[in-house]
Amino acid sequence: MRVNEVNEVFGVLDINEAQKQILEATPVLERESVHILDSLRRVLAQDIVVTEDFPASDISAMDGYAVRHTSLHSVSKQMPVHLRIIGESPAGRPCGASVRDGEAVRIMTGGLVPEGADTVVRLEDAAEDSGYVICANDPGRGDGIRLRGESLRKGDVVLRAGDLISPVEVGVLATLRRAYVYVHQKPLVAIFSTGDELTDFHDPPSPSKAMCSNLYALAAQVLECGAVPLCLGIVKDDLEAQKSMISDALRADVIITSGGLSKGKYDLVRESFASFGMDMRFSNIFVKPGKPMIFGTIGRKLVFGLPGNPSAVMLSFDQFIKPAFLKLMGHQNAFRGRSHWRDLNGPFSLIDSFAEGNAGNHGHHRASLVPMGRPSPVNGGSGQKQKAPDGYKPGRLERVTH
Amino acid sequence: MRVNEVNEVFGVLDINEAQKQILEATPVLERESVHILDSLRRVLAQDIVVTEDFPASDISAMDGYAVRHTSLHSVSKQMPVHLRIIGESPAGRPCGASVRDGEAVRIMTGGLVPEGADTVVRLEDAAEDSGYVICANDPGRGDGIRLRGESLRKGDVVLRAGDLISPVEVGVLATLRRAYVYVHQKPLVAIFSTGDELTDFHDPPSPSKAMCSNLYALAAQVLECGAVPLCLGIVKDDLEAQKSMISDALRADVIITSGGLSKGKYDLVRESFASFGMDMRFSNIFVKPGKPMIFGTIGRKLVFGLPGNPSAVMLSFDQFIKPAFLKLMGHQNAFRGRSHWRDLNGPFSLIDSFAEGNAGNHGHHRASLVPMGRPSPVNGGSGQKQKAPDGYKPGRLERVTH
Repeated sequence: MRVNEVNEVFGVLDINEAQKQILEATPVLERESVHILDSLRRVLAQDIVVTEDFPASDISAMDGYAVRHTSLHSVSKQMPVHLRIIGESPAGRPCGASVRDGEAVRIMTGGLVPEGADTVVRLEDAAEDSGYVICANDPGRGDGIRLRGESLRKGDVVLRAGDLISPVEVGVLATLRRAYVYVHQKPLVAIFSTGDELTDFHDPPSPSKAMCSNLYALAAQVLECGAVPLCLGIVKDDLEAQKSMISDALRADVIITSGGLSKGKYDLVRESFASFGMDMRFSNIFVKPGKPMIFGTIGRKLVFGLPGNPSAVMLSFDQFIKPAFLKLMGHQNAFRGRSHWRDLNGPFSLIDSFAEGNAGNHGHHRASLVPMGRPSPVNGGSGQKQKAPDGYKPGRLERVTH
Repeated sequence: MRVNEVNEVFGVLDINEAQKQILEATPVLERESVHILDSLRRVLAQDIVVTEDFPASDISAMDGYAVRHTSLHSVSKQMPVHLRIIGESPAGRPCGASVRDGEAVRIMTGGLVPEGADTVVRLEDAAEDSGYVICANDPGRGDGIRLRGESLRKGDVVLRAGDLISPVEVGVLATLRRAYVYVHQKPLVAIFSTGDELTDFHDPPSPSKAMCSNLYALAAQVLECGAVPLCLGIVKDDLEAQKSMISDALRADVIITSGGLSKGKYDLVRESFASFGMDMRFSNIFVKPGKPMIFGTIGRKLVFGLPGNPSAVMLSFDQFIKPAFLKLMGHQNAFRGRSHWRDLNGPFSLIDSFAEGNAGNHGHHRASLVPMGRPSPVNGGSGQKQKAPDGYKPGRLERVTH
């Protein structure tokens, strides 16, 4: 057992220094594969790379008529064209027909653009009459179509290791057909309280005993962090009992004890942990007024010894233990809690670009996300820039180079 | 089916008016009994009334010596008194002896004050020598003792129906030996997506189909609210299929659908729900640009029809459905999310007042919480006010009058 003799003697350790020492001793837990609904509020432990283009084919961005642009040559209100309707392409049910000059296919939002067509005339700009559609203006070649790979291309990285999973990311993962993802494990946290004076729910009430309420408040704090509490109960002020409890607690990644830091009890707790080879990193005890606390490690496991005072316990948890949990769970900024936290418009635009059914609302935007500033295959040559949705900040999405 | 014809015609409903209509139609769910660790982030559905005094007996607020104050008469540094130590009262192990003039009992923080004693001399202000304790100053009668009922008295209301349970409240409930409490139920939320063009993880991939990603994003949003999602999957654009799906969804308290609001599909969805007697409260559909949506009720169950566009789905959820969830779960301010949200110092002081083991840090405060402004039984007559901890705001705690 190595004790930092300076803080042992002076009994006081600067809070920032204590936090720093704790984080330095804290590992990042390994990854595990979970269903995307179980990944919520957890940290990705893999990059998510797109394995096929989105959309996978050219699809319609609106309800209307798929045509060849050449059919609309010199069309005007005075000179509308009549195009023969040769089929229908609703979303999910491709039309087998090939569109030639003078022909049109009825198409719905999300429907596959049939062979031969290169433009979609929106429903509102056309009228139907006895098997013909009458068009009175030219929306421009390529209009109304989301081209294959326009939103995402094979190899794009949409989410990165270290990203926190919120409902938006769950939607993105589902869109990419990722049912399972790797996230960092949740820490198992053994909690016990020490003291002959303590009692638990299953003990008979006694006026001379106090409920081990810290056990439950700490378990609740652990749950709120997204970690898994193991409530091991109360241990008496007895060396063998404490050693047996610690031996059980070593199943966990983190051990938190409450109580046992007062004069007369501390030596016992120190000896119990020492028998398991604990490396005492600091023992900021007998501080008055203040929050006594010990911190040590047994291998890669963290040990926090907190006082018996409930508010000191809860505040110490927030100040010292929660940042360690965040690091264990893969957060890259343990004090912010949200690593890589991004502009909300980014992910929203991202998942909109593969809109389920694309039910309206796209307006005239050709692409709702332009990840790499790729020129549009349709109008890129004309010097006209694609318009990104309001608030979209580029730079999140990167191509993996092999 | 009652349709608000005005908004049906104009297609637009003011957001605030829509939220108001939704909340008016939303019931508060019944209560259920859960373990305190399962009550976290839920809303209490009962007042928590103290059933016995806290502390249950007079206990020591510090490590020291329990004495009769009369023994310290005219003590001074020049004239210390020697008191014979007749026993020991650690926390949880009461001392059987009765203290007379000239005697003392060694006592620990939380230890029962033995019969006859009325003052505790702190360890630091005394010295021990061959079975005697030497005291050189008079701390004042009653010092170092937390009197029975000083923190809480039988009948005090510590938490109220409507309070949100955080880890602090879990600690308070444990202290009061409440293993189970009544909280409002979590809503069961059936979710399905409509559309022939949709596909799920278990279907073979198809370039003409889109993943039902809204199903998963919505389930994640439901989970984040603390409600329980039932993911029912995809339903085809077919009347019988939709009726069968709705029939299944009626197990839940809330039904959320995504898709089916576009022209051509809407009548089908409307007919399916109508066959179950849905009262259509508003149908804010075909709005462009904007977020189409329908809201109705089937008995006490809520039905939300959202569009297919992913960001519209997620934003509509936050704007319209989450407030309804909060009301269902018993929150009294559905837009704030935290009903009765109180000054943090209040609950902390509260749980400190029954400090598990009371391990130090109390200093000289006689009570860490003075709920009713009750005069201290010890020094209340002297005109001296009890000092509450910094930041404590009185007024939360009320006595139930019978």
